[in-house]
This record gives sequence, structure tokens and C-alpha cells, in this order.
Amino acid sequence: MIGDMLSKGEHDIVLLQEVWSEKDHLSLKKKLACSHPHSHYFKSGVIGSGLAIFSKHRILDTFLYRYSLNGYPYMAHHGDWFGGKAVGMAVLSIGSLTANVYVTHLHAEYCREKDSYLPHRVVQAWELQQFVRHTSAGADVVILGGDLNMHPQDLGNRLLRSYTGLRDSYLETAKFDGCEDGMTLIADNPFTCKKELVPFEKGIRIDYILFKGSSKTDIFCDSMSTTKGCVPDHPFPYSDHEALTSELRLESHTPPEVGKDEQSKDQDSAGKVAELVDIVTEARTEVKVGLHCAERKRCTAARTGVMGLALLFLELAIATVSWLALGAEQPFPRTSFYLLAALCFAILLTTSLLYIFYTMELKSLQGAEDQMRLAVGSLQEKLRGFPLAQPHNVQRKPPVGDPEE
Amino acid sequence: MIGDMLSKGEHDIVLLQEVWSEKDHLSLKKKLACSHPHSHYFKSGVIGSGLAIFSKHRILDTFLYRYSLNGYPYMAHHGDWFGGKAVGMAVLSIGSLTANVYVTHLHAEYCREKDSYLPHRVVQAWELQQFVRHTSAGADVVILGGDLNMHPQDLGNRLLRSYTGLRDSYLETAKFDGCEDGMTLIADNPFTCKKELVPFEKGIRIDYILFKGSSKTDIFCDSMSTTKGCVPDHPFPYSDHEALTSELRLESHTPPEVGKDEQSKDQDSAGKVAELVDIVTEARTEVKVGLHCAERKRCTAARTGVMGLALLFLELAIATVSWLALGAEQPFPRTSFYLLAALCFAILLTTSLLYIFYTMELKSLQGAEDQMRLAVGSLQEKLRGFPLAQPHNVQRKPPVGDPEE
Repeated sequence: MIGDMLSKGEHDIVLLQEVWSEKDHLSLKKKLACSHPHSHYFKSGVIGSGLAIFSKHRILDTFLYRYSLNGYPYMAHHGDWFGGKAVGMAVLSIGSLTANVYVTHLHAEYCREKDSYLPHRVVQAWELQQFVRHTSAGADVVILGGDLNMHPQDLGNRLLRSYTGLRDSYLETAKFDGCEDGMTLIADNPFTCKKELVPFEKGIRIDYILFKGSSKTDIFCDSMSTTKGCVPDHPFPYSDHEALTSELRLESHTPPEVGKDEQSKDQDSAGKVAELVDIVTEARTEVKVGLHCAERKRCTAARTGVMGLALLFLELAIATVSWLALGAEQPFPRTSFYLLAALCFAILLTTSLLYIFYTMELKSLQGAEDQMRLAVGSLQEKLRGFPLAQPHNVQRKPPVGDPEE
Repeated sequence: MIGDMLSKGEHDIVLLQEVWSEKDHLSLKKKLACSHPHSHYFKSGVIGSGLAIFSKHRILDTFLYRYSLNGYPYMAHHGDWFGGKAVGMAVLSIGSLTANVYVTHLHAEYCREKDSYLPHRVVQAWELQQFVRHTSAGADVVILGGDLNMHPQDLGNRLLRSYTGLRDSYLETAKFDGCEDGMTLIADNPFTCKKELVPFEKGIRIDYILFKGSSKTDIFCDSMSTTKGCVPDHPFPYSDHEALTSELRLESHTPPEVGKDEQSKDQDSAGKVAELVDIVTEARTEVKVGLHCAERKRCTAARTGVMGLALLFLELAIATVSWLALGAEQPFPRTSFYLLAALCFAILLTTSLLYIFYTMELKSLQGAEDQMRLAVGSLQEKLRGFPLAQPHNVQRKPPVGDPEE
């Protein structure tokens, strides 16, 4: 269905987030061969990543960043872990311009009141902004499209937009035609679980097209639209989310006389940096909550494992003592003895695997928290006007030593 | 020991790869607090990542990329999987310049003749060059230090150097003082397994400091040295590898009149691009070998799992039939019955976990292969002088549509 819509060739770039099989990608590729000759499907996780890009413009290069945290493998009914959530980047050549196009899908929110995945989603948003910021320096235009699974004012969303300077198509567009408030997960959709939407009965906006230009190129959103429920002449919609379309206009311009540094410094007004410090601090708090939670879970796994081991030893001790004292007679019925031993081994194996998994979760959370702390320090330093306000007349640097063990 | 050497403060930037505990990092941090006030320890995996950076210059920002492939968890005696191998980036402010400093540690090579980890290491080298290339566009200077676990002319090394344009300190240095041929893993080292070095009896060079400048900055290696075995006045060396030190000189210069694009185009002479096509094609072949191997292993896991399941059903069927035919009598001795059932469950659980793991390995290998295929296509396109040779006078672009599902 989506293939039919897209094959009309009205869109330069198409970003998809839920192509869950190689077969689906190949059939889409075949259908869009004429309208979108260039495509890439990003592979990750067990069944994913689900991310695909189709383009009229040549794809020069691709790169995939897998999020370090992405739910739990034993939450198989949620399935996010198996999807291997990630952010894919494609470097496109649009005429003489280089566009970095990002497509991503963040961990779903299953219960807003008690969202146990919030720390994971915040770390994903953190890594997403890092990835976009660090990989887009050479690009003339940056476009990010994705199912962020976050409301417009959610922490992760603010973090992403503030840090990268990406602007939201829906807020920037000159014209809009689509669902109320730009919603993409609407209650009318038959694939949507209405219970999960409460208290947002009408729906929520969780899919986004963000963009920014560069010193060489301006970018504007002339119009934006969403699909509105069912496919024309069919009783069902394209997908569980409404599809977004943005019409973006690029304008090349010569960079202003001032250097890039000065220009970006002007843009980074103290107010913006101060706001960013607040947002990163808020994110750190959320990650710390996740840290406590992961530590508690790891501790439970360790304790259960020790109990399983103790049970095994106890059983063996009783059996040995009775065997020594009473001769060859078994104090346990044989069946119970073996079943109990098997249970102990099962507990030991499961808790060991969980312990390893939670340790990795902890490392990733700690790593993100460390990076956030460093970032807050840098931002505060910037806020003090130091060291970015240093004179730019240092032409020759002293030697830099660089030992390595 | 290494702390004592470094605390003299002769080095601007220190990159370490085997700091395996938070405690070691904190004790180093304390020791180097005066000489290197800025530091960052990258956390990853179960016990790693081991990567740390100490610097005299302010660290503005950090970012970690975990390699998608990194050995197997059941090869616990090799330990690489538990180390969570990755590449860490730190953005340093050196005077008015921005330096991107990378530190990494690739999967070890345990047997050169039959190196089952080669596809993983090649994919790591591929991801490393992608990471460096895409994140360093805004940097004035790029420095990479690490234990690459590859000989100088190994595929991964050529891939990294050719694609990123990074230059090898050892080959570029004006002066060198250290082990013969710049070796860093020497036979004399008491921590080294001499058997693993055969047929390189004297040792090998597997640790590197690579660097490159930018259109704004030139970089030169004035001198380089390695430690030579034991710590002065001690009977043991600093580590299992010799430490490298490079003295790098930075020189700012105004960018030439031609644009950055033109300049890089000149550098990318057809010969270099053709060489790169060959190297990436070679890497693709290696990844394909890994793909076949992973497919075979996954197939074996699946087959073993099915056999375990069949055995379980067979056992249950025999027990049920005998129970129905002979009344309450058990055809098996009870003990054997339960032991066999437990064995079947153990087989099923293990093969399921292995199947999931190998599927993820396959996805990562396929993903890397897809990216390499796309890269070869782009490079060949470039070789044909198209589309990079397009005129640069396109000032206004047509609108770009960007739908997303």
C-alpha cells in the first residue's frame, strides 16, 4: 500500500522505520525502482533495525549507530530489544549539496504513568543527538525523520532539538494539512491500542521530521501534511502511525564574512546554553533513576543466584551426610532429588545471564551519565565565556606529545 | 608504574586501552590530577571498554561507538566480548584549535594461521574508519591512538588508513627511538605468549598513533619513541605492550583559495580511489567468509535444537504409549527419565540463545557488507568523474519532499 503511494514519485526522500524483513525491503525496492533508484536498508539486532531509506538522489555513504540501551530481551512481547533500535545515516548528493539524512526509531512507550523504559529512551535520545551533532559538521543540510516515541515536549525531544539545533517541521511549516495537532498516532487507527493512549484520547504526535541548514545553505519548510486514517478506497490505514510529508526548500547562500566559530558563538546565546544545561541536568537525573533501578535488579539477580547455589549445596550436603551415615540409602526420593538439582541449575544459569545483562546495562547508563556530566561542565564553561572567548591569534602551537600504552 | 611515568607531565595527551576497572582509572586520575587535569574513562560491555584519555587540554565533548561485532560470549577465556571493544572520541580544545582524539582497542588475534576472528576485526576496522571519517569533518586535527591488533599491512589497517587519510606516526616521524621496526608486542616481554608470535619471533607492531591535519592546520611528527622492555630499575615492563610516544607539531595556515571540495578532489587522485576500491572489495570478501561461517554455525545451532526437541518428544511419546499400554508402569527408570528431560531442556535453551546470537552476528555482517557494496559503488562512480565533477554553479535547489511513515 505504502509502496503504491510512494511509487507516484512525489517524494525526493522516503524514510521508513518498520520494514521488519529483508523481503519487505526487496519488494518495496522493486516497486520504487523507477521513482527512487537509490535505497538502503539498515540491518541490526535480531529482526531489525526496520530502518530504510529510498531516494531520488544518489546515496554516497551510509553509517549505522546502534543504541547501547534498548529494553530487555526477556520482554519478548514488547519486542524492542529484538528490533535492535538504531539511527541510520545516509549521505546524499543533492546537486552540488551534501545532505546528511538520518532515520531512527526509539524504544516504544507502553505505559506513560509507569514508564520503565524512560531511562533507556533518554539515553537513546542522548546518543542520537551526539551522533547527529558529531557526524553532521561536513553537511550542507541535515534532515532527521523518525518515530521518536516521545511527545513534543518530552525530555528526550527537548534534549535532541536543543543540542543539535534541529527544527521541527510541524512547528516551522508555512502550511499544514493533516490530523489535528499533527498527531501521528491517532485513536481512530485500528492497529492502535486505545488503552495505551490514555489520557490523550485523540492521539499523540510522536513522529517527526526535523531539519537544519548550515553556513552554506538555508532550509525552509513550505508545507507539511499527514495521512488521515484510511487509504483512499480501502477500509484500513497504511500503518499503525500516520505518514508525514514535509516539503523542504533549500537555498544556497555564500557564508557571511565572519568565521564559522564566531557565527556559531553568536547563535549559542547564553540563554540557549543555560537552557541546555538544565535539560542535560534533567536527563542526568533520569539516567540516575535508571542506574538505581538497574543496580537493584542486578542485586536481585545476584541474590537469587546465591540462593540457588546454597540450595544446591544444601541438597548435596544432606544427600552426602545421609549416604555416609545410613549407608547407600537415599534420604530423598530420587525424582525429587534430580528435579531439585535441575531447578538449582536453571536458577544459576538464568541469574548468571541476567547478572551479565544488567552489568552491561549499568555500564551503558554510567557511561551516558559520565558523558552528560562532562557535557554540563563544558556548557557551564562556555556560559562563563571561557575558553571559547580566547583570542584567535594563536597561529603556531607548541608540540603536542601523545603517548599511548 | 605507568602513572609514575606519565605524572612527569611530558605528554599532552595520554591514550590508554587496558584500564579494566573503575578503581584503576580513579587511582590514575588521582596520580595525574596535577599533570593532566582533564580525563575521561569510556564504559562499555561487562568489564570495559578499558579506554581512557588523560589530557592537559580541556575535553569539550566525548562520544563512544561500540563495535557491532566483537567475538563470542562463550569464548570467555579470550574475554574480548566481555571487554565491549569500542572507539572513544574526545573533542579537545588546544588553544584556538579543535582536535578530535580517538582511542580504540580492536579484537585480539589469537592464531594468525586460523584466525576465526578476522571477519569481526575487519568489520571493526570498517566501523572505525566510518566513525573517524564521519565525526572528524569539523576538526582541525585528528589523532587516533590504539591497540589495533593488526600488522602494519593487514587488510583492516590499509582500510583504515586509505579511507580516512590518517598517516602513521612511525612511517612519518623525523626521528625514531625504540624497539626494532617499531614493534610494540615484543618477544622479550614476560606477559607475552611466545607461541602466539610465531612466525614473527622478534615481535610485531600492532599499536599505532595515526594523525591528520585539515585545510586549516598542518600536522607533522617530529619524533617518536617506544619503551624498550623493562621499567628503569625494575625487573618488569609497564605492560604487555610497549608504550608509544609521538611528538606532533601543529601549524595553523590559512586555507588555500580553492574551496574545500576542490582541494579534497585533488587529493583523491584516481589512483588512490582505485586502490580504495580494491581494499574495500577485499574487505567484502573477508566479510562474506564470515557470513558463511556464521550461517553454518547458526544452522548447526538450529539443527541441534531440533534434535533436542525431537528427543524430548520421543521420550514423552515412549513414556505415554507405555503408560497407556501397560498401565501405571514406567518403561524408563525414573532417574534416567528426568535426567534425559533435563538434558533436552538444556540443549533447547542453549541452542535458542546461540541461534539468537548468531542471527545478530549475521545481521551485523550483512549490514557491513551492504555498506561496503554501496561504498564501492560510490567510489567507482567517483572514479568515473561523476557526479563530483558536476558544475558548482547550482545556486538554488528545487524543493525536497520528505515523507515518512
